[in-house]
Amino acid sequence: MSLQKLIDGIAPSVIPLISEGRVADYIPALACVDAQQFGMAIHTVDGQTHHTGQSNTGFSIQSISKVLTLTLAIEHHGRALWQRVGLEPSGDPFNSLVQLEHKRGVPRNPLINAGAILVADALLDAYDDPIDALLTLIEQQTGTRPKLDLEVAASEKETGFRNEAMANLMKSFGNLQHPVEQVLDVYFRQCSIVLSCEELACVFAFLANDGKQAGTEHTVVSARRARRINALMLTCGTYDRAGEFAFEVGLPAKSGVGGGIAAIVPGKMALCAWSPALSASGNSVAATEALRLFAERANCSVF
Amino acid sequence: MSLQKLIDGIAPSVIPLISEGRVADYIPALACVDAQQFGMAIHTVDGQTHHTGQSNTGFSIQSISKVLTLTLAIEHHGRALWQRVGLEPSGDPFNSLVQLEHKRGVPRNPLINAGAILVADALLDAYDDPIDALLTLIEQQTGTRPKLDLEVAASEKETGFRNEAMANLMKSFGNLQHPVEQVLDVYFRQCSIVLSCEELACVFAFLANDGKQAGTEHTVVSARRARRINALMLTCGTYDRAGEFAFEVGLPAKSGVGGGIAAIVPGKMALCAWSPALSASGNSVAATEALRLFAERANCSVF
Amino acid sequence: MSLQKLIDGIAPSVIPLISEGRVADYIPALACVDAQQFGMAIHTVDGQTHHTGQSNTGFSIQSISKVLTLTLAIEHHGRALWQRVGLEPSGDPFNSLVQLEHKRGVPRNPLINAGAILVADALLDAYDDPIDALLTLIEQQTGTRPKLDLEVAASEKETGFRNEAMANLMKSFGNLQHPVEQVLDVYFRQCSIVLSCEELACVFAFLANDGKQAGTEHTVVSARRARRINALMLTCGTYDRAGEFAFEVGLPAKSGVGGGIAAIVPGKMALCAWSPALSASGNSVAATEALRLFAERANCSVF
Amino acid sequence: MSLQKLIDGIAPSVIPLISEGRVADYIPALACVDAQQFGMAIHTVDGQTHHTGQSNTGFSIQSISKVLTLTLAIEHHGRALWQRVGLEPSGDPFNSLVQLEHKRGVPRNPLINAGAILVADALLDAYDDPIDALLTLIEQQTGTRPKLDLEVAASEKETGFRNEAMANLMKSFGNLQHPVEQVLDVYFRQCSIVLSCEELACVFAFLANDGKQAGTEHTVVSARRARRINALMLTCGTYDRAGEFAFEVGLPAKSGVGGGIAAIVPGKMALCAWSPALSASGNSVAATEALRLFAERANCSVF
Repeated sequence: MSLQKLIDGIAPSVIPLISEGRVADYIPALACVDAQQFGMAIHTVDGQTHHTGQSNTGFSIQSISKVLTLTLAIEHHGRALWQRVGLEPSGDPFNSLVQLEHKRGVPRNPLINAGAILVADALLDAYDDPIDALLTLIEQQTGTRPKLDLEVAASEKETGFRNEAMANLMKSFGNLQHPVEQVLDVYFRQCSIVLSCEELACVFAFLANDGKQAGTEHTVVSARRARRINALMLTCGTYDRAGEFAFEVGLPAKSGVGGGIAAIVPGKMALCAWSPALSASGNSVAATEALRLFAERANCSVF
Repeated sequence: MSLQKLIDGIAPSVIPLISEGRVADYIPALACVDAQQFGMAIHTVDGQTHHTGQSNTGFSIQSISKVLTLTLAIEHHGRALWQRVGLEPSGDPFNSLVQLEHKRGVPRNPLINAGAILVADALLDAYDDPIDALLTLIEQQTGTRPKLDLEVAASEKETGFRNEAMANLMKSFGNLQHPVEQVLDVYFRQCSIVLSCEELACVFAFLANDGKQAGTEHTVVSARRARRINALMLTCGTYDRAGEFAFEVGLPAKSGVGGGIAAIVPGKMALCAWSPALSASGNSVAATEALRLFAERANCSVF
Repeated sequence: MSLQKLIDGIAPSVIPLISEGRVADYIPALACVDAQQFGMAIHTVDGQTHHTGQSNTGFSIQSISKVLTLTLAIEHHGRALWQRVGLEPSGDPFNSLVQLEHKRGVPRNPLINAGAILVADALLDAYDDPIDALLTLIEQQTGTRPKLDLEVAASEKETGFRNEAMANLMKSFGNLQHPVEQVLDVYFRQCSIVLSCEELACVFAFLANDGKQAGTEHTVVSARRARRINALMLTCGTYDRAGEFAFEVGLPAKSGVGGGIAAIVPGKMALCAWSPALSASGNSVAATEALRLFAERANCSVF
Repeated sequence: MSLQKLIDGIAPSVIPLISEGRVADYIPALACVDAQQFGMAIHTVDGQTHHTGQSNTGFSIQSISKVLTLTLAIEHHGRALWQRVGLEPSGDPFNSLVQLEHKRGVPRNPLINAGAILVADALLDAYDDPIDALLTLIEQQTGTRPKLDLEVAASEKETGFRNEAMANLMKSFGNLQHPVEQVLDVYFRQCSIVLSCEELACVFAFLANDGKQAGTEHTVVSARRARRINALMLTCGTYDRAGEFAFEVGLPAKSGVGGGIAAIVPGKMALCAWSPALSASGNSVAATEALRLFAERANCSVF
């Protein structure tokens, strides 16, 4: 079966699941998104694209941005980064402070909130304007500079007391170099970037292609780093359901509370599925099932 | 033996212990205090006073202030306060976030940092300027309006990331009503109040006297509330050594990292001992031993 | 008001509260106790006794026994005991393993389950038959050797997996000297002792009388140790409601899931109140309120 | 480069690392193993074998057995198993009781100790003699029935208080169906099985071959279940270093404190490396590095 037919066949199976989830409602700008949307896009390592549903609709990428800031931070800091943030799945909800206190301000991994805040701090060592660097990285892949949803960023800042708490706790242990407000400003803005499934599949394609941009073969990161980022996505990319996601889907992936999930089939393609309604774990119900069906039907689990 | 002789006899026994402790050094303004100081003062319910050593030297009362803000908050909020803060000893270090997260932003008791921050928030409901109310309460007892050490308050604010983290965590659970910065401003300033042993013994005398000012018999709080505040001091007043303090000393007491400890002999007197060098638990080594010797020799343990 | 009138007046106030609680039902032998019972007894330091309600009905003393085994263990081991068990309130439910693991097998205090199991182990160093020693201690106070409820002991053994878990965890850290089964056998049997309110008030009177048996003035423990045991009862005696109990009642006390609570008015008397229905915290609802009313009306809080 | 040359080249690189580790010493039978050993073996899906070093020396497979009991338990219980044990990496040391208590007796995943004890209990539903079933499964792959090291099993039983604690804690929550002693007997015996690298590579080959025995193509488990077991190995197979192992090596693997690590290259081969000296995390230092070098040089990371 062609990839196009395959993804066309997935939408009808997963759309009924939307009603089992709930759109993120902790800020108004996310809460007002229409739940009844689903899109999916593929970008292969040889530059082919396939899409279905609302694959061209922009959404708030939220935590999916953590993979991209991590990519920039690894390029700048190399192994030194791992003195300040761990590599292990957390076993706790994404925003828990328990482990952060126990580990004396060293976040468990770079894909949970505390870890991504640490990465934002690390980017402030590397760039005067980390958001500019991030937007440039994305633009280099897609050809278009994405927009921030400043209303979302402002809302998150106003209500982001838990993230404030984590940043201050890391700061109290000396693991943040820059002022908390400056670090959180980067963090909240990176989360507010708006991209579509098609754009995200394109942006993530380098992780399926040994670190090289699909099509141009321009090197974004080394093959080894691409593999390592994929490993982190697999073990830590879907909040405290990473084990279940690996078990059911079997692909490196990163989800966001905007309802998107970007996934990698190493050596073959990047995918993005999106649907706003989330399960209790914070992962999109329909997008998770879409990726599960895809991996099963395309027989492309990494396992 | 007279009380005066008794306390005169204590100083020589405890001064050698100073070298076992360490002056609080998390902010310069505290770190530069000379460790080799010891003072002790008594204020009886019939208005007699006794003192020994550097009993007239002012020091940063720090966490001892928590008893006084609690007194004001109970007067204003009554039982409603206990919806927002617990009554139980914590079993964790004074600044841990673990229980605070587990209990969804409700601090374990009002005498640990998180609890005192919550109490500061509660005072902002009651007073336009809680520090003014606190200074007035103290002035009503001593006749003198105490000074704040603004250098200490500023230092604590600059380095108080852990307290920022706790305040933001409570805010994230909706348990703080006022802006974090405003609440912490009250908290850092209350901790910076400067009082001597003699003044603190005088200020705390109402807790030994059924809530009434010793001498004037002016009611500060009801007898029932005075007893309850004493109970909280006994179970929660000396960081995570409250059990040991009750076991060894047997008096309600509240310590601060400035090296002071205020204690109550119900029905008889308030005491304050002070010496800057702290044990690992944050309680003054010499002041703890001074109170232990006093309770033993005066046979005045509540048990 | 005379003590007799005072306690006679308490029963009608607290009996309606029985319906708010629930009889312990984790073993059949406890679950079948009639909830609608209440008794209270006083034993003063000069040997007077007062009682009301079903004060002569025997019940399973359960955790109240922990104070008595602690008394024996302190007499035998002295300060060395505190190398193996702490002095601090736990802040966790009575049977949690979290702190026990964190503290590497050292229970937080001797009045939680893990601590009492440790004390049972310590008694096996001191006595060939610790239960015999315990029964002898009780008999020395009351003149009657109490009975064990062997059905209760057997039931607890059969279902006591949580206690097995704690004992094994302590054993894994090398903090138990004797075989787990032998230690738990002591523990389950001590909990199954049957005493009435009158008998318990008599047994506990030495803790109100500087360690001496009320009446005979025979020394059970030194005055200092009696005070320390009282301190532990106050800070750790009523599960994870010790802070609230100190706040509301203000007396050293130890509760058991059989519905009894023994309390001390230092220098004056021991009391025991009993009613089988428990609050969620494991303390008898009616007995707690009876002690609160008594302390308030007799104005005998230690604070 | 041929696989044979590749693994021949690895031994000299990793043998110097042995001195950085320490042989497991919690039981004498393991402590006396000579640390200076290293072996490695490959078993491809088309039945080819390659080996180097002490690849034919038997060792205690310990926790590697957890994958095989899990295989049997999944076959018997299907999805119902996941009501009783989770799928998530733990974020805590392999033998922590904290999460087990927090999750009310449901182990975090089947490859940590508590999870494997749960799986042993589940096997007692399925088999009169689970060890016989396990030995048969192994014999079906290798042609030889392996031996148990009964001295190891007996030693572990005598000193396995932590495992006793976990089993009793699960039992207290009703998550073990069989008597603790019976369950632990299975667990300790499964850990004591003795196999060589060559045998383990052969036994694990079905997980690389869509669940079918390499060579005979006899179905051990479905392709889907093989993938899922691989996913669990990747996210949970190397104690609390699973994230780092995925990051550095990129293969599903299960380690044991006997020094062995079995790994899977999906669709291609199973490998086993062995060397007794362990890092602090409990994984063999030299075997981990051997697998890392292999994945890098053979370019066979799943990512």
